[in-house]
Amino acid sequence: MAEKTKLSTDAYKGVRDFYPEDMFIQNYIFGVWKKTVEQFGYQEYNASVLEPTELYKAKSGEEIVNEQTYSFKDRGDRDVTLRPEMTPTVARLVAAKRRELGFPLRWYSIPNLFRYEQPQRGRLREHWQLNVDIFGVESSDAEVEGITVASKIMKNFGASETDFEIRINSRKIINFILTDIFKLDEAAAHRLSKLIDRKEKMPAADFEAQSQQILGEQTKLFLNIISSKSGDDLEKITGKQRSEIPGLDDLHSAMKKLNASGVKNVVFSPTLMRGFDYYTGIVFEIFDTNPENRRALFGGGRYDDLLAIFGNERVPAFGFGMGDVTIRDFLETHALLPKYQPSTQLYLCSFDEKSLAFSVSLADRLRESGINVAMDLSGKKISDQIKSAGKQKIPFIAVIGEDEMKTGIFKIKNMDSGEEKAVNENEIKAVIHTKK
Amino acid sequence: MAEKTKLSTDAYKGVRDFYPEDMFIQNYIFGVWKKTVEQFGYQEYNASVLEPTELYKAKSGEEIVNEQTYSFKDRGDRDVTLRPEMTPTVARLVAAKRRELGFPLRWYSIPNLFRYEQPQRGRLREHWQLNVDIFGVESSDAEVEGITVASKIMKNFGASETDFEIRINSRKIINFILTDIFKLDEAAAHRLSKLIDRKEKMPAADFEAQSQQILGEQTKLFLNIISSKSGDDLEKITGKQRSEIPGLDDLHSAMKKLNASGVKNVVFSPTLMRGFDYYTGIVFEIFDTNPENRRALFGGGRYDDLLAIFGNERVPAFGFGMGDVTIRDFLETHALLPKYQPSTQLYLCSFDEKSLAFSVSLADRLRESGINVAMDLSGKKISDQIKSAGKQKIPFIAVIGEDEMKTGIFKIKNMDSGEEKAVNENEIKAVIHTKK
Repeated sequence: MAEKTKLSTDAYKGVRDFYPEDMFIQNYIFGVWKKTVEQFGYQEYNASVLEPTELYKAKSGEEIVNEQTYSFKDRGDRDVTLRPEMTPTVARLVAAKRRELGFPLRWYSIPNLFRYEQPQRGRLREHWQLNVDIFGVESSDAEVEGITVASKIMKNFGASETDFEIRINSRKIINFILTDIFKLDEAAAHRLSKLIDRKEKMPAADFEAQSQQILGEQTKLFLNIISSKSGDDLEKITGKQRSEIPGLDDLHSAMKKLNASGVKNVVFSPTLMRGFDYYTGIVFEIFDTNPENRRALFGGGRYDDLLAIFGNERVPAFGFGMGDVTIRDFLETHALLPKYQPSTQLYLCSFDEKSLAFSVSLADRLRESGINVAMDLSGKKISDQIKSAGKQKIPFIAVIGEDEMKTGIFKIKNMDSGEEKAVNENEIKAVIHTKK
Repeated sequence: MAEKTKLSTDAYKGVRDFYPEDMFIQNYIFGVWKKTVEQFGYQEYNASVLEPTELYKAKSGEEIVNEQTYSFKDRGDRDVTLRPEMTPTVARLVAAKRRELGFPLRWYSIPNLFRYEQPQRGRLREHWQLNVDIFGVESSDAEVEGITVASKIMKNFGASETDFEIRINSRKIINFILTDIFKLDEAAAHRLSKLIDRKEKMPAADFEAQSQQILGEQTKLFLNIISSKSGDDLEKITGKQRSEIPGLDDLHSAMKKLNASGVKNVVFSPTLMRGFDYYTGIVFEIFDTNPENRRALFGGGRYDDLLAIFGNERVPAFGFGMGDVTIRDFLETHALLPKYQPSTQLYLCSFDEKSLAFSVSLADRLRESGINVAMDLSGKKISDQIKSAGKQKIPFIAVIGEDEMKTGIFKIKNMDSGEEKAVNENEIKAVIHTKK
């Protein structure tokens, strides 16, 4: 007998299915994000996941475009890419309506992003990412606000300042070290900056050996410089004054203001790069301090020159991105995830056609009063109907039969505690609201 | 002098950018959708836009898969498609966890979907679509609930029953007409059903001519049948009893129950097909009755056999999809769109570094009290700062200077009316809440 072809129920490799319990967590994360950034005056925008491929060629970094994007030709022979990051898109939108928009412009979005890479913990082929950007601020007040927002989000998730640290650096300082202290040419500077970016991911000995290849006898000085714990250290080791090191004053002032406004866990981190080629000034990252999860959670930086690729004047910009996969891992590690609760509050079970008709109109009135009500329409026996409510984790049920229709008194059962309360229709809402 | 290459700020063809004012409308539409379906006990799920191409080969219909999908090979040579519709995905998710899920299962999602077609009014290459599905209900109670939800959504958008009509039909009736009344073989039945599906989009004469090619002398009877206004008409014209026409009893009972629960604008529409091959029973569509916008807005139907493609037992299912582009057009046509309001409520303008520092801590406290506050960080003159708030349509502003810092009295200006109120910090919230 020929067997029917059976289609797989697997999702595409490296992406996730969101069943209601996953969606609940996703919505919780998005909710904290939205609420926090809107408090700070950020407005939501969005765009399509499809972008012209050329958008990423200018500034995203070669590795991303050549090896990690989903790019293809559409049926009309256009080169199109599933966005691997949101910054080029937001730059495109701002550049397109520069004259109409009011600056400083605060925007946020929660796009899904695509990277073609081997799925592993914390890295999937599709993830969602909060993007928070401020345009039109030259001073490091933009950094102070952006990093405050990032820190506030962590706190609103229930994290305390000891759970994470904020690492901060400036591309200007790095550029000064590479080109002024070590006099590297462009190619060597690029190689060394990529090496610095990978430092946390390789053994110290490898890092030193590879530094040696680029810097030769200057390696020792380099290792000293990048182990500086503060601007003062950096001055001492390089033998330069603060004013001689571009970006250092700015960085110092941002750190001071952050401290003043209650963000205390900021540390200077001279090896911090953040991958993208478009960063021009301060970069930062939020680092998980839990010994079992020591890793960068998210970060961002200043990218003052990016809008110029659209032929516009320069628009100063600072922003960060925060992914849902890493933040979910963080919340799990720190036991900060909320417990699942379906949006449905009450489930009505009915004996027959007649009680079902009664349930339909009861449900209708209860919905008007603000309760989310589902009904069992299966026609199965009551015990099976109750079992179905249980599988769906619906907190309250009521069985509608002859008695209930006659008396107008309903037994509302709390499915967690098993407790039942007999109430009339107007009292149902109060019973359901006993559960937060 | 060589000119710098200038990158275009255009979006990819046929997709939309969502600036905050567009996003506001999008969020309004999504909000009405979510609220309504959750009242009826539907739980949210989601999945990736990337799906294995084979998922669509079985049942979506040839035209969609061969001509209208975004399909490509990934870097690992897998065939992958940007989902053109959500039903195969939801069927996949339900089939994968059939044993763990509680039935009747009510699920919804608001995915973005992709079709490669020429962009035109109401049709873009990417749109978002509310998908509402109920699994595990054999009886037409599923249809009654689903169509009630669809109608309730329209009413929650502010539409009245005269603004739209609900057309309803059954694939079972059509199949009976094609194979039992006209004795067509499978190929001819398929051709005729595709012709019926296109009826509203072609001149009556063309439709008749093409029917003639398939049906010959039976064309007149066919044209009579498909102009039936009711089940009674259908019985008379075909000379069959109600019980002899499969699906007619079910359809009649669903229409009766809809009427009983207050959904009055339902009409029998024997030419209604809805494109997808997977429909097996009742199909329906919401039709705009506005003479300037006469068109189908959205619809759905029963698809009892779809889960069987995953090798599972049959799971009865009914669902519908409602797109954001058509609904936005509808709301525009009927003047039902809400006026833009940014989420930011108050904008603080500051004279200098000192007043900015004051603003930062004032803003902090106001946020704690539940107000969304943005600050101008540009360092520009006050009139420019106010202009920027105006461009962003922020409803209230306050200027922070020496006086305000000394007295603790702030002039809160309503940007619409120009009215100013001088209040202390604790009274700011009340002023802002005068605006709904």
